Amino acid sequence: MPAIIPDVSPLLLAMDLTGIFIFGLTGGTLAVRHRLDIFGVMVLALVTALAGGVLRDLLIGAIPPATMQDERYLITALASGLFAFFFHPFINRLVKPVMVLDAAGLGIFAVAGCGKALAYGLGPLPAVLLGVLTACGGGLVRDVLVAEVPRVLREEIYAVAALLGAAIVIAGAMLDLPKAPVAIAGAAAAFLLRVVSVLRGWSAPRAPGS
Amino acid sequence: MPAIIPDVSPLLLAMDLTGIFIFGLTGGTLAVRHRLDIFGVMVLALVTALAGGVLRDLLIGAIPPATMQDERYLITALASGLFAFFFHPFINRLVKPVMVLDAAGLGIFAVAGCGKALAYGLGPLPAVLLGVLTACGGGLVRDVLVAEVPRVLREEIYAVAALLGAAIVIAGAMLDLPKAPVAIAGAAAAFLLRVVSVLRGWSAPRAPGS
Amino acid sequence: MPAIIPDVSPLLLAMDLTGIFIFGLTGGTLAVRHRLDIFGVMVLALVTALAGGVLRDLLIGAIPPATMQDERYLITALASGLFAFFFHPFINRLVKPVMVLDAAGLGIFAVAGCGKALAYGLGPLPAVLLGVLTACGGGLVRDVLVAEVPRVLREEIYAVAALLGAAIVIAGAMLDLPKAPVAIAGAAAAFLLRVVSVLRGWSAPRAPGS
Repeated sequence: MPAIIPDVSPLLLAMDLTGIFIFGLTGGTLAVRHRLDIFGVMVLALVTALAGGVLRDLLIGAIPPATMQDERYLITALASGLFAFFFHPFINRLVKPVMVLDAAGLGIFAVAGCGKALAYGLGPLPAVLLGVLTACGGGLVRDVLVAEVPRVLREEIYAVAALLGAAIVIAGAMLDLPKAPVAIAGAAAAFLLRVVSVLRGWSAPRAPGS
Repeated sequence: MPAIIPDVSPLLLAMDLTGIFIFGLTGGTLAVRHRLDIFGVMVLALVTALAGGVLRDLLIGAIPPATMQDERYLITALASGLFAFFFHPFINRLVKPVMVLDAAGLGIFAVAGCGKALAYGLGPLPAVLLGVLTACGGGLVRDVLVAEVPRVLREEIYAVAALLGAAIVIAGAMLDLPKAPVAIAGAAAAFLLRVVSVLRGWSAPRAPGS
Repeated sequence: MPAIIPDVSPLLLAMDLTGIFIFGLTGGTLAVRHRLDIFGVMVLALVTALAGGVLRDLLIGAIPPATMQDERYLITALASGLFAFFFHPFINRLVKPVMVLDAAGLGIFAVAGCGKALAYGLGPLPAVLLGVLTACGGGLVRDVLVAEVPRVLREEIYAVAALLGAAIVIAGAMLDLPKAPVAIAGAAAAFLLRVVSVLRGWSAPRAPGS
């Protein structure tokens, strides 16, 4: 397997697992709100945390997906589900911190997903889209499982922030800049755009006359 | 391809095809209740019968999936769809026998899915989850296709029974016990837990305060 | 990679890209009707145009899928999304031309999907089903994403037309007929059955007593 950004350093692994844990919390707490049972809570945590990366790995040919080979990903996602099951009232009070951490996960996943697609030899356009898929795919599948139109398709600057992060990775690769600072810049830009857009109430445009 | 439990003997193949047929019946009759056309009935039968195994094969790297290579699986699933299309009133009267056969399919699929994941070199935790996915994935996709929150996430002891069956396979592998009796014990345990839980009205717990 | 029908000639590539563009338009305009934002419109266009082929490629082991390797597919699908975003009132007035072009896409995709599955060594039954999946999978995922029961499962002669086209490819392969005329005949038959069925108001049968 080619070297991939999130495997390079313990710091980045820690960031990746933090992103998984936070994504899992959003899935688990949504499951509790839909009155799913403990299995439903664990599945929504797993899916929200891991489906984006799994879909990316299937599409770039990294099979079996990383999630199936490194048990730390599964354990972290399962832990987030258990945490949501028992402490959902506590998590639901932390709206702003969860949003900020989720934005951090969004940036990390977009950058890591795009970087991994490039490392597997894909072109810039599919790599950008796979960065967005890595960041947004889990939330999308989560919403489909509770029979809702995925929020990422309807509102807010979420996917657009992931797109920005992934586009910075591509720009850096095209300019042959060193990978680590570009990755940090991409993740930071996605994070900031997401956080500022929530605080300011920005949303992506709808079609004229829709 | 490594040797896989359901390929070992004609008896186990027969059990596997029986599980596929029963799972297909539940998909086909649900499609009829949703007033889908014949194509919808066939698709729901196929998906319910085969999606769990197909998802497992994609995730372990067994590509193309077994379903695409051995036409007996497809033929059995299509036959279950046709049967549901023409005889749904008859099937709907057989609530208890269908439940018992479905529980048998659940146990077989959980054990076979977990065993195949181990045979492909995955670790115990992903193997258990893939056993559960093999057993529950078809029903989950079936419910998504009729725009319902999947029943397996909401209620009853269903996934938990699959989990028990898969966990027994892992325990047997760790203790180096002979595979065939362990597989039978795992499938039987999943089957019994499922049947008893339905008869007693047990369900999996919801989050405290949900 | 084995030679695949749509790669053989510029004419067939043009037909394939036309099919993608039209499928993308149907996804994009549905997204506008559901009041999704620009990202949702682009995702529904991409998914409707490409998901059928991506699923087929995953299931036959053509990984990474063609869509990830030839940027013309992605660019065409993204262009259809942008077009739908800005010109949806115009597209919505063109009900009949869009239906006719969609029927052409249906025929092309069914034939190309079935042919590619055969080229990858699959048997006739899975190849027919993969032809239908290539033609209908995008629309199916599109409808799931807006939380509707997929139209292809409910009504009209749509999947059946794809089935006819794919079956003609199989019949031609079994009789060892030359591929190009068989492909044209299959696509034309699917196209005609679809168009005539819409004009005449035919639909697939529902289960007796449903």
